[in-house]
Amino acid sequence: MDQPIRVTFLGPIASFSHQAAVETFGSQADLVPCISFADAFATLQEERADYAIVPCENSTNGSVVQTLDLLADPNGLYGNVKVCGEHYLTIHHCLLAHEGESSPVQQDYNSITRLYTHPQAWGQCDKFLEKNLKGVERQDVSSTSKGAEIISKDTTARTAAIASRFAAEYHGLKVLAENIEDKANNTTRFLILMNIQANRTSDWEFEHIKASVTSGTAKEKTLISFMVSQDRAGALADALLIFKTHDMNLTSINSRPSQVKAWKYMFLVEGHLTPTSRNEGTVSDLLQGLKRATEYCRHLGTWRDQLIPNPEGEAI
Amino acid sequence: MDQPIRVTFLGPIASFSHQAAVETFGSQADLVPCISFADAFATLQEERADYAIVPCENSTNGSVVQTLDLLADPNGLYGNVKVCGEHYLTIHHCLLAHEGESSPVQQDYNSITRLYTHPQAWGQCDKFLEKNLKGVERQDVSSTSKGAEIISKDTTARTAAIASRFAAEYHGLKVLAENIEDKANNTTRFLILMNIQANRTSDWEFEHIKASVTSGTAKEKTLISFMVSQDRAGALADALLIFKTHDMNLTSINSRPSQVKAWKYMFLVEGHLTPTSRNEGTVSDLLQGLKRATEYCRHLGTWRDQLIPNPEGEAI
Repeated sequence: MDQPIRVTFLGPIASFSHQAAVETFGSQADLVPCISFADAFATLQEERADYAIVPCENSTNGSVVQTLDLLADPNGLYGNVKVCGEHYLTIHHCLLAHEGESSPVQQDYNSITRLYTHPQAWGQCDKFLEKNLKGVERQDVSSTSKGAEIISKDTTARTAAIASRFAAEYHGLKVLAENIEDKANNTTRFLILMNIQANRTSDWEFEHIKASVTSGTAKEKTLISFMVSQDRAGALADALLIFKTHDMNLTSINSRPSQVKAWKYMFLVEGHLTPTSRNEGTVSDLLQGLKRATEYCRHLGTWRDQLIPNPEGEAI
Repeated sequence: MDQPIRVTFLGPIASFSHQAAVETFGSQADLVPCISFADAFATLQEERADYAIVPCENSTNGSVVQTLDLLADPNGLYGNVKVCGEHYLTIHHCLLAHEGESSPVQQDYNSITRLYTHPQAWGQCDKFLEKNLKGVERQDVSSTSKGAEIISKDTTARTAAIASRFAAEYHGLKVLAENIEDKANNTTRFLILMNIQANRTSDWEFEHIKASVTSGTAKEKTLISFMVSQDRAGALADALLIFKTHDMNLTSINSRPSQVKAWKYMFLVEGHLTPTSRNEGTVSDLLQGLKRATEYCRHLGTWRDQLIPNPEGEAI
């Protein structure tokens, strides 16, 4: 293959998704921002990219429903899209300012008159802001990287942004303070998606992604969506029992509106399995069983688990 | 009881939550807006209100995670708060303008130069706006009722808002066009919460809420939260099987970050049961079983099902 691999990520440039794409695919890949979650899925389905990377879950805020709804795919728009990997990114915030600022003492923020960031980041950096930048005017922007971009154009350097070190490097900004978030271990999980029909990637699907497996667990994760009859007691329990029968430990379950009928749900279930020679056919056996027990079911992918728990069981 | 019942709802005044409170408790109740989801729960826990009403789910967008996280209550802040009822409200949008406007022909919107509404409502009224108000300046506001309030003060009447008929009546606005949403059947389910330790309401908990049961199904819904061991295959399936053993049909299941440990989940499970003399003790038996099968579980309430499906199975 002569062309570099092409990966689409949720924009803007220098977003956490961009950072996750660089960490997963390296700087040689052709990384292309897309404007929405649906755009990422469509770009992949139409083979305008080899991979897509989208956030799916945050350790503090929970599921990213836009991704779940596109994976649930009630209208069958993204039939060729499957999950082939995942990447965990710990979210760190920094206080950033224009390089031009006249060497302030690290802890002296008096010259700052206006702050930019995404609304969610104010809350995440509450203690730092209360202590160091109390009363400074705040301006909401659509993403932390957008805030970094805005202040990169302000040569008066009286403005600052809360964004990642990655955004600082991208926009040539100075890091005035690092890791200013209140709570450590705020981690986002990204899913790596591929098109299972694409010629370019069908025979090397895991090659590039495997590089990001650093060590540890050999577990695999599997994601399956299904719908069950609403009228029968135990229909959902029966479906989930099939996972147990096949020794798959359920790690997460989400119900989303089916979009087919009000108050009918699509379930998205993720399970863990340690692959061995004995359980090679487990996923396909499981799917056969689920087909009998549900009204609809679809295998959304199986991939290498990247979560490495630290001794306290926290994500690192 | 001499004092009228006091109900807190998610503000501002004339919001959909306010409308749901009026429809459930009538105009004689003392209805008090609160500023956040957490405020509604705290107001109830501290007995500053007899009931609270909060949105928990939308037929199009799915769960309202703020409500789920407060019900999950990982820090035990709201131990006395339980669900005691529910209310379904169909969301209709109207185009509203100041009464002062010089009797425009219903379909002539030429004099409108600026529109106000919540960001989500633009998308919900896309077709109407495309046809009738293309290119008109749009101003995002924090709620549809806030938009109605803003234009109620604009006597030039060159501005309009997208909000409910309820907000129009509250703010004395003219309805220029009704039901302008693209998709019918966009319904929000509200939960009615009470404090189980409050003297004022303990003996008449269902009295007022029963009035809103118009007809139909005698089913009851039960909501339970629990956490299971992550290390054992089938722990979640085992817990859900207990619901089946007790003939309770699971209607919804949500996993939320436990806030105790990263990537560990609190499950919120809702089930249906038709109460009969035979199954009077079902919920407490179920809870006994769950206590043995889980690390933590809590009964969050049992109440009368208010969903009346129409012949096509849609919520009405």
